[in-house]
Amino acid sequence: MNITNKIQPASLKHYLPFLDWLSHYRQEDLFGDLLAGVIVAIMLVPQGMAYALLAGLPPQIGLYASILPAILYGLLGSSRTLAVGPVALTSLLVAATVGPLAPQNSSQYLMLALALALLVGLIQLLMGMLRLGTLVNFISHPVLSGFTSAAALIIAFSQLKYIFGLSMPRLEHLNEISVFIFQHLHGTNPYTLAIGLGSIAVLIFFKNGLPELLARRHMPQSWILPISRSGPLAVVISATLLVWVLGLHEWAAVQVVGKIPAGLPGLTLPSFDLAKLSGLLPSAVTLSLIAFLESISVAKSLGSKRREKVDANQELVALGIANLGAAISGGYPVAGGFARSVVNSSVGARSGLASIITAILIALTLVFLMPLFFFLPQAVLAAIIIIAVVKLIDLATVRQVWRYSKADGLSLLVTFAAVLVVGIEKGILLGVATALALYLWRTSRPHIAMLGRIAESEHYRNVLRHPVETCPQVLSVRVDESLYFANAQYLESSLLAAVAENKQVNKLVLVCSAVNFIDASALETLENLRRELNDAQVAFYLAEIKGPVMDRLQKVGFIEELGQERIFLSTHQAMQALECGE
Amino acid sequence: MNITNKIQPASLKHYLPFLDWLSHYRQEDLFGDLLAGVIVAIMLVPQGMAYALLAGLPPQIGLYASILPAILYGLLGSSRTLAVGPVALTSLLVAATVGPLAPQNSSQYLMLALALALLVGLIQLLMGMLRLGTLVNFISHPVLSGFTSAAALIIAFSQLKYIFGLSMPRLEHLNEISVFIFQHLHGTNPYTLAIGLGSIAVLIFFKNGLPELLARRHMPQSWILPISRSGPLAVVISATLLVWVLGLHEWAAVQVVGKIPAGLPGLTLPSFDLAKLSGLLPSAVTLSLIAFLESISVAKSLGSKRREKVDANQELVALGIANLGAAISGGYPVAGGFARSVVNSSVGARSGLASIITAILIALTLVFLMPLFFFLPQAVLAAIIIIAVVKLIDLATVRQVWRYSKADGLSLLVTFAAVLVVGIEKGILLGVATALALYLWRTSRPHIAMLGRIAESEHYRNVLRHPVETCPQVLSVRVDESLYFANAQYLESSLLAAVAENKQVNKLVLVCSAVNFIDASALETLENLRRELNDAQVAFYLAEIKGPVMDRLQKVGFIEELGQERIFLSTHQAMQALECGE
Repeated sequence: MNITNKIQPASLKHYLPFLDWLSHYRQEDLFGDLLAGVIVAIMLVPQGMAYALLAGLPPQIGLYASILPAILYGLLGSSRTLAVGPVALTSLLVAATVGPLAPQNSSQYLMLALALALLVGLIQLLMGMLRLGTLVNFISHPVLSGFTSAAALIIAFSQLKYIFGLSMPRLEHLNEISVFIFQHLHGTNPYTLAIGLGSIAVLIFFKNGLPELLARRHMPQSWILPISRSGPLAVVISATLLVWVLGLHEWAAVQVVGKIPAGLPGLTLPSFDLAKLSGLLPSAVTLSLIAFLESISVAKSLGSKRREKVDANQELVALGIANLGAAISGGYPVAGGFARSVVNSSVGARSGLASIITAILIALTLVFLMPLFFFLPQAVLAAIIIIAVVKLIDLATVRQVWRYSKADGLSLLVTFAAVLVVGIEKGILLGVATALALYLWRTSRPHIAMLGRIAESEHYRNVLRHPVETCPQVLSVRVDESLYFANAQYLESSLLAAVAENKQVNKLVLVCSAVNFIDASALETLENLRRELNDAQVAFYLAEIKGPVMDRLQKVGFIEELGQERIFLSTHQAMQALECGE
Repeated sequence: MNITNKIQPASLKHYLPFLDWLSHYRQEDLFGDLLAGVIVAIMLVPQGMAYALLAGLPPQIGLYASILPAILYGLLGSSRTLAVGPVALTSLLVAATVGPLAPQNSSQYLMLALALALLVGLIQLLMGMLRLGTLVNFISHPVLSGFTSAAALIIAFSQLKYIFGLSMPRLEHLNEISVFIFQHLHGTNPYTLAIGLGSIAVLIFFKNGLPELLARRHMPQSWILPISRSGPLAVVISATLLVWVLGLHEWAAVQVVGKIPAGLPGLTLPSFDLAKLSGLLPSAVTLSLIAFLESISVAKSLGSKRREKVDANQELVALGIANLGAAISGGYPVAGGFARSVVNSSVGARSGLASIITAILIALTLVFLMPLFFFLPQAVLAAIIIIAVVKLIDLATVRQVWRYSKADGLSLLVTFAAVLVVGIEKGILLGVATALALYLWRTSRPHIAMLGRIAESEHYRNVLRHPVETCPQVLSVRVDESLYFANAQYLESSLLAAVAENKQVNKLVLVCSAVNFIDASALETLENLRRELNDAQVAFYLAEIKGPVMDRLQKVGFIEELGQERIFLSTHQAMQALECGE
């Protein structure tokens, strides 16, 4: 039986996953969902505001984007623990896309962010319905790793202005940001800097020191994780109190979040003109793919731990609808976040209900708690972002990938450098193109091995790697690649060179065990090769041709032309027939 | 011994091929070279003028481009019979590139054509020195075939205006040309039309009827070819006489070539500004590749008939220098032409001297015979072009390629349609991109076969294609493709689905005989797969891993992690060890 992607009979539960968990919902699931929902909400309030600022948007937009999208994903997502909302990478991409088109904090900026969410939603929904989830596989892991590291570096640097209390214009490139900060260091606000560095220190302690401390005090493991993840809440509360009590926002000019409009966002269909939408389209495609790729990676890694099947196309549909939700409820593009999803899963979320509980708590925060954030220093939000992204800068992977394969290492480094130098979007496109080009280059110069017989067996292996027997008149050559336009010429010249170097040879067997197809260009080359070998008094044989390849060769009469007696099922049969076996 | 492209010890004769043929030159070679030189010159005079008109240049430019380039190629080319000069495809590309930038027949137009020749020369020379000749292999045969057919169609249509005696503005797209001609049919000049159609009829007769006629009269074969190829000369002479005698250019307004400046071109270094040069660069790259591709195909096909080794990189160098020669002697981009090269080879050219003799004859024509061409009707040149290009429209290849492989057929048709619809340069780029995308798509969904044992042998084959034995607990699966980022996920989900469908299976052997490398992304997927299979109580084994692949897996500790006992040299050994062999 051949394995193909069979189209499953469509079940309603497949397309509406909440029908599945709702019908099996047990009372004991509720505790886990409730706990996870509360803890994720505690993480999400400061993160949501921080990421919105990163995207160049007012802080409440981050919270708006955490309500309806989270509810919709909770109902439709095939992962039960993915926490969907604002994330660092998509926020950066929103800033990079909308930044050049509209002044920050203008209503136009907000409109474009909404339009971007709408486009991302439509693209993802469409891709999901067309079952194009596999397209993201063309973004290789090294490219993604290089992209993520570079993006994290840009994000971290872009937040330094808040830590130093400087007002910096929108700068996308790392070197511009560094130069600006260096030149304006004299304008540093020492109070802001103290709050920023203090927040960073506290956050690091919560993440690295606290868990060990609590473990040593025999606190149960299930408590340690949520406590260690509430570092952001802790710094938010303490820094807010500090500014309020000391009045730092007045006499020390510490920048604070200020007045945030309280209440829920209204549901509106964003209005646009088509010209602007089509201008956003290329960025929206990149954003859709990156958002999906981040979400699916997180969902899969959580899913495999929980024996949960994640369906790529259903994920696209769910994310697409979540983004449409963001577009009509005043939010901006969302994705599944890594940190919050891990916490959601670890503290016991059992179903999409956890997401819905988080969303309700965020809504309550918006209605009742907004005045409390007036005194929250922006440096604290910057510290939260910096700590969240620095762990994405992944040097271990660089080393490991480089050691395993120089080509993969190269595409990682090219992507990393390109994102930093030519910008975020063009950078990842360049990375993808590099990875594809390296793959094509590799297949265009295939490994070609001369074979010999492993004594007393029917196995033939590379003469360079195994102790084997060969015979002088018969050259048996295995090409380790499908034959197509990019490598056909290379094969031809390699074989002709091999024959020229081995004067006694009068028979050449091409072993096709690794040839998975032969395209029209390569077929023409094989015909030339046969003629050229013939002219050189060398007979041309083929062995171990695979079924699908053979079918095609037969259809165009190549086999007939070559002669059926020139084709062997196995190398061993060929060698015996050519009197080279014994 | 592995076969690699060894760098040959550089010999002077390799880089200056004329040293080789000059040192072995025998008196009897001279006759062949002389005859070939004369006959090619007879073909080249009308063709050169016609192709220059096609390129939008005055007719003498085509002759200028036939002197110095032909001499330089004759000295430096590794093919001894390739006839280098103006050809249809590059002329069309020159028109398409320069046409939108300058008014036809302006000195600026000529300057840009010279600049293009300079750039093409530099690019080809550089590519040859960097040994990048293999790059053209990325243009597949179907793409080239689709491009050539579409270009030929455009060329033929663009000449219709001369046949009908209409004055048409520069139009690049087929539909525009057809509409224009249809709308202006009432303005047809009947005398011009008669001359044009008459010329076409004569040319067809020379090509198709005459050889048979002469053969029936027992004329020796070596005479027939040159005679049948002098059709262009015959129509040129008779039409010129006709116009002159009847004064058709006056009272009947038949458009004639008119006064052509006599004498040789001066040697000058073309002057340009850098901004314009860099604007021409993308077109120059395309032009360089197309010109090289046409030349190398012709040279190789002639070379294989004559047991002559053609070196791609030396060809690039020689063509590059020929194009530089065109740039400094008032010509325009050149390439090796198909028809003239075939004649050159068939009537007996032995060395580059034939090309040099052709060049001298063209030079003499320029000095002494130019006034004779005053009365030559443009419709005759158009007829020569049309007859030369219609044979390039190759429907047989379309049918054959489509039958062999739908993907190849698709890339042919896409290229054909794209060249007609979006233009010549973008069309071929789109075609190349389509072919690469189809290749990537194909490798991203590899053929996966379940294997069984062919009774009493050590061979394991696809259960669907061969009568084989299998055993229920062990699933042996062969994946027919290297594992890389684009197909790793597909493999993972296919194998997990196969295991899920076959509940008794508790061992899975992945047969890697067709896996030529495993990239970093696929390695990560294999690690996930092993974990996931383990969770499903299925043990994961590998068989027939190739040497280079094994080396890498060992280097990163994958083999150690999996366990050496999980790796088998052959499928048979695996099946026996897993007690499935007997």
